[in-house]
Amino acid sequence: MKQLFKTIFFITLLSIGAVIAHAQKTEQLNFINAKALTLIGKSEETQNVYDRIDSNKYKGLPTRVAQLLTNSAGLAISFKTNSTVISAKWCVSKSRALANMFPTAHKGVDLYIKRGDKWQFAGIGKVGGVCNDELIISRMDNTEKECLLYLPLYDKVDEVQIGVDKKANIAPGEEPFAKRVLIYGSSIVQGTGASRPGMAYPARLSRLTGINFINLGLSGSAKMEPEVIDMVAAIHADAYILDCVPNTNPALIKERTAYMINTIRSKHPKVPIIVMQSVIRESGYWDKTLGETVKNQNINIQQEVLALLDKGVKDLYFITSEKMLGNDHEGTVDGVHPNDLGYERMLAHIQPLITDILKKYNIKLDKN
Amino acid sequence: MKQLFKTIFFITLLSIGAVIAHAQKTEQLNFINAKALTLIGKSEETQNVYDRIDSNKYKGLPTRVAQLLTNSAGLAISFKTNSTVISAKWCVSKSRALANMFPTAHKGVDLYIKRGDKWQFAGIGKVGGVCNDELIISRMDNTEKECLLYLPLYDKVDEVQIGVDKKANIAPGEEPFAKRVLIYGSSIVQGTGASRPGMAYPARLSRLTGINFINLGLSGSAKMEPEVIDMVAAIHADAYILDCVPNTNPALIKERTAYMINTIRSKHPKVPIIVMQSVIRESGYWDKTLGETVKNQNINIQQEVLALLDKGVKDLYFITSEKMLGNDHEGTVDGVHPNDLGYERMLAHIQPLITDILKKYNIKLDKN
Repeated sequence: MKQLFKTIFFITLLSIGAVIAHAQKTEQLNFINAKALTLIGKSEETQNVYDRIDSNKYKGLPTRVAQLLTNSAGLAISFKTNSTVISAKWCVSKSRALANMFPTAHKGVDLYIKRGDKWQFAGIGKVGGVCNDELIISRMDNTEKECLLYLPLYDKVDEVQIGVDKKANIAPGEEPFAKRVLIYGSSIVQGTGASRPGMAYPARLSRLTGINFINLGLSGSAKMEPEVIDMVAAIHADAYILDCVPNTNPALIKERTAYMINTIRSKHPKVPIIVMQSVIRESGYWDKTLGETVKNQNINIQQEVLALLDKGVKDLYFITSEKMLGNDHEGTVDGVHPNDLGYERMLAHIQPLITDILKKYNIKLDKN
Repeated sequence: MKQLFKTIFFITLLSIGAVIAHAQKTEQLNFINAKALTLIGKSEETQNVYDRIDSNKYKGLPTRVAQLLTNSAGLAISFKTNSTVISAKWCVSKSRALANMFPTAHKGVDLYIKRGDKWQFAGIGKVGGVCNDELIISRMDNTEKECLLYLPLYDKVDEVQIGVDKKANIAPGEEPFAKRVLIYGSSIVQGTGASRPGMAYPARLSRLTGINFINLGLSGSAKMEPEVIDMVAAIHADAYILDCVPNTNPALIKERTAYMINTIRSKHPKVPIIVMQSVIRESGYWDKTLGETVKNQNINIQQEVLALLDKGVKDLYFITSEKMLGNDHEGTVDGVHPNDLGYERMLAHIQPLITDILKKYNIKLDKN
């Protein structure tokens, strides 16, 4: 028993020590405004640096779309440092927790560090309130490292600062990814169900391929409205991926698909346009009405794309979704949105198809 | 434009229709107290039905352990119904959201339905407050179905009711899983990082194997204290899995492992005891001190188990953790806890090892 008390006392001391060490670490850090570093993943320059798009530049956008464009989904800070510690301060809105999202994906940040030629996860900044000050990783060696700090997927962020050792260097990183592939789509693009910002599928595609996939996920609102499509078409990219089937309905798909594809084609005559079917909604196996709706959405999008191909539209591709999330029905958080397991399976399905298409257009890393 | 307004009007009508339909559905349901159905996943009978263990039965339990034993991790309601709708009402505590957990895993519920000889996910009940009333799945056919509703992993629940169509039957389900395998361990057993209760790894193991794995995960508190080990050993099981390395430190592992294994062995002379190494903490690749600690934890647990085997302890097994979460470092939510992808990889590693061991002791489904 005496031994037990000694052990408990020792553990308590260790815990207190850890708290003091954390406090000392934070005070000893040098914080730099992330605006002085490199911001990647943007569709275009914006007045508010962490918005994805200046919605007032485009006429007639639905209010919800304009609001979602202020979410920092897909944005990341690229920097180089030899610091042994990396910390972050960032502010988000007061919006309530989302019932089907991890708090870190919703309002938190996560860090990747280059290891050899691969980006490797290093740690998260947990969200605890509107303004956050979190130690992400510490006790590293002091070699220079290339870092990527992903920003929240579903909130507007502000005042991002990166903290490093007082004696360490920190400098803007290079743009780590080549070319630009815009992904317009639903919450599945924006990242609902992912456990942290870097696990959204466009971010994972970028790290896996070296190509710059831009997240234009508009949760619940990727409805192919003509005004939104005009905005999508106005953004320069080397390829366009359209993963917007889940947010519409079979009738809207018939009504709007041709306008979407023709508009992008007319502005960008020779770039590849890749249209994706909706993931099969797991709840649809039981909810017969939902199952039928998704089936009809997927039939209609396929018919629309085939009709355009018949009419001679070139450089247009189609990815089907059958078994995209595997066959054990465990790949979603809620019957609709993939979890990290579902996204892994989805990537295994779409990544080779997408990279094969992009290679034909020389959209690849030079080394590949 | 006129067509556009017509479409928007139609969508709005559809949405209003859905809300009205939901309200009507809830009013039309018949709610039955889940106490009248079958509760599975319990270690033992308890005074408060949704506690895992009556902590006052065991002397000297740490306060935090006693508190965690009131979390409903691993418990599920088994029932049969021909209802086309399944709904749930349940109450949880006022405890704050956890930064590294999905709200549904923390305080929500999820439903599985038997399809052929497999359990298939059907839907979740999102948590919105202390007391919740959620439609989980609707518009199903009216054949009789076997259902499992998993309860929150990290909260104390109360007043669970299942809602079905007024004209539908609902009855207690059978115990769907055979035998009893107790898993004592950390937050990784309890389910941090899983997206919903049914995705905690003991629950997934039960559905995959048909064996009844019981969740005795004690988040942050699986420290092999003698008082807790006495409690573990007092619980009857056909096998014991000890996945408690992550919550201790290398010194405590040396101090406490022999007591843990010898105590369980003395109470249960011939049952298999399976000891697992800690998952490698992803942050430990960068944080050298953390990396070294986990390495030493894993070395020490291996040495302790080998020493006991040398001393002639029988029916003792050891599972190593190398590459348990894959090699791309994407398998955690926070550098420590697996996400659903990490748990999938962990299961691919441990499931065949565990089932091979259990088969030797005839711990299996009869049909296997």
